[in-house]
Amino acid sequence: MAKVAPFRVQPRPPLCRDRVMLKFCGRNTSIHATMEGGGDDGFSIERYMASKAATVNEELNRSLPLQHPECLHESMRYSLLAGGKRVRPVLAIAACELVGGDEAAAAPLACAVEMVHAMSLIHDDLPCMDDDDLRRGRPTNHVAFGVSTALLAGDALLALSFEHLARGCAEHGVPADRALRAVAELANAVGTGGLVAGQVVDMASEGVDVSLGTLEYIHMHKTARLLEAAAVCGAIVGGGGQGEIEGMRRYARLVGLLFQVVDDVLDVTRTSEQLGKTAGKDLATGKATYPKLMGIDGARAYAADLLVGAEAELQRFDPTRTEPLRHLARFIAYRQH
Amino acid sequence: MAKVAPFRVQPRPPLCRDRVMLKFCGRNTSIHATMEGGGDDGFSIERYMASKAATVNEELNRSLPLQHPECLHESMRYSLLAGGKRVRPVLAIAACELVGGDEAAAAPLACAVEMVHAMSLIHDDLPCMDDDDLRRGRPTNHVAFGVSTALLAGDALLALSFEHLARGCAEHGVPADRALRAVAELANAVGTGGLVAGQVVDMASEGVDVSLGTLEYIHMHKTARLLEAAAVCGAIVGGGGQGEIEGMRRYARLVGLLFQVVDDVLDVTRTSEQLGKTAGKDLATGKATYPKLMGIDGARAYAADLLVGAEAELQRFDPTRTEPLRHLARFIAYRQH
Repeated sequence: MAKVAPFRVQPRPPLCRDRVMLKFCGRNTSIHATMEGGGDDGFSIERYMASKAATVNEELNRSLPLQHPECLHESMRYSLLAGGKRVRPVLAIAACELVGGDEAAAAPLACAVEMVHAMSLIHDDLPCMDDDDLRRGRPTNHVAFGVSTALLAGDALLALSFEHLARGCAEHGVPADRALRAVAELANAVGTGGLVAGQVVDMASEGVDVSLGTLEYIHMHKTARLLEAAAVCGAIVGGGGQGEIEGMRRYARLVGLLFQVVDDVLDVTRTSEQLGKTAGKDLATGKATYPKLMGIDGARAYAADLLVGAEAELQRFDPTRTEPLRHLARFIAYRQH
Repeated sequence: MAKVAPFRVQPRPPLCRDRVMLKFCGRNTSIHATMEGGGDDGFSIERYMASKAATVNEELNRSLPLQHPECLHESMRYSLLAGGKRVRPVLAIAACELVGGDEAAAAPLACAVEMVHAMSLIHDDLPCMDDDDLRRGRPTNHVAFGVSTALLAGDALLALSFEHLARGCAEHGVPADRALRAVAELANAVGTGGLVAGQVVDMASEGVDVSLGTLEYIHMHKTARLLEAAAVCGAIVGGGGQGEIEGMRRYARLVGLLFQVVDDVLDVTRTSEQLGKTAGKDLATGKATYPKLMGIDGARAYAADLLVGAEAELQRFDPTRTEPLRHLARFIAYRQH
């Protein structure tokens, strides 16, 4: 196995650390409502996310009408339209808007990213993989539709993702060279450069003592890579320059890793009901996690570093447009499920 | 289930039927060597296919170096580089050349189509699907690498297909709008508009009496659609006009169905050793096939009709360029395994 150096943020900018730490990773405090309800500047990430999610949900619904063969389409819709925070699509649209693009141009990309995400959840949950029965508070796809239909629904969602991205960009007047670059970036994030590679190493690491380097490899591929692709493709589709695109890549890698660190902490601090999926599973299966390797407080401190690093990456952009991504990073850090 | 009218070729042009019929679908005759060795015009489809396959094999090998995580890449390479006739890639390149494009421009597309094909074989062979142990004379991917790795190798090959198509077209100077259109066409052929839909209906039809219409639906989606996409994308990448692109679509649909009718006949007339895969399986599993619904002679006659129709579709093209596709259709009709 190739050695991967732990991904650390250096140097660490000054930060009112206690305030941030109070809210990290499932800890409820008295300032919880203030921070979740809106920032000091009146921007509400919840309203922003709900608005973008509504756009995405509507387009996802239109993209996949219930038609012959019905069981396949039902299975695909079951997972794709199951709700969720739509973090990846929101990130794609926000990155596009950050570089001056508009929501309509980014919507097909946002939907494509969510289709990839839905596919990865379906396949990861299968009995031959993580063998999970519960997802977002409902039976997983293979429990509801059978293993073979679930597997094929995943395949079809992955294919639909690229079809939707290509057709949608053409219909919305996104220049073909940008759309094509987004196709390559998104595809790379799925296969040997991302999700699949992460899942393979993750499965090989179960029940084995893994290093922090391996843990970082798993999450940089399994979780962060798709968030990275969402942001990078958003910047590409929106017409960002190379510096902006790579800035978005660094921001999203930090946010992606943050997402996973928080996920690992929530897995040991929250219940299945609170999460809408099986809690405590990492511990039960002996899986390597950040709390296991760093302790819960160590993992929380690492999350704080990652948040600071992500916010620092936004400094190169037009400050009148960075609010959504600044608040999105905090939202991911402070989420309770 | 939606009713699908059987796909018939009307009207039937005159044909020296006996000569063709003598060679159809596994029947060996005295003129076998002449027909397989080369046509009356000195063109050798075997040499043409071997040359294109060599180009494709070399690019496939380069596209997927053995790297970390090794087991994933080994599993992907095992299926992708397992040989085979490379009918789909050859069709893609031939269609591109037919409309005036060159081999280099079509090679990334040809490889992308083969990656999709390899993925579909891996997933179709899985225990929860067709549960097959033998493919091209070797253990199937999941027998060699385990079910979870095989599933992930299929996912990664599908993703790599779109990445390779997008990057390869850009590198070879294919205009981005053509490449993007090819992405959409190929993606549609994989999911609910093609392979997956065909596999879902195929599985639902096992052990059930199915109509000729349903059988046609299965094969138009499961087999013909990818051949269709290969030819259509070849014409798109090569810069063909809309009439040429749609002409290629009709040609390839006929050839694709022909491919499957011949496959069904060979399954009952050849041994596992001759085919390099489990023979007689359709009969053993009670699967609907053309010989079962039409009788072997009826299926052979249908194949003859399809071949005539496919050759007729080539009449709209520059006659100095149609030889490869004319001979490819015959090659598919006359193949022995």
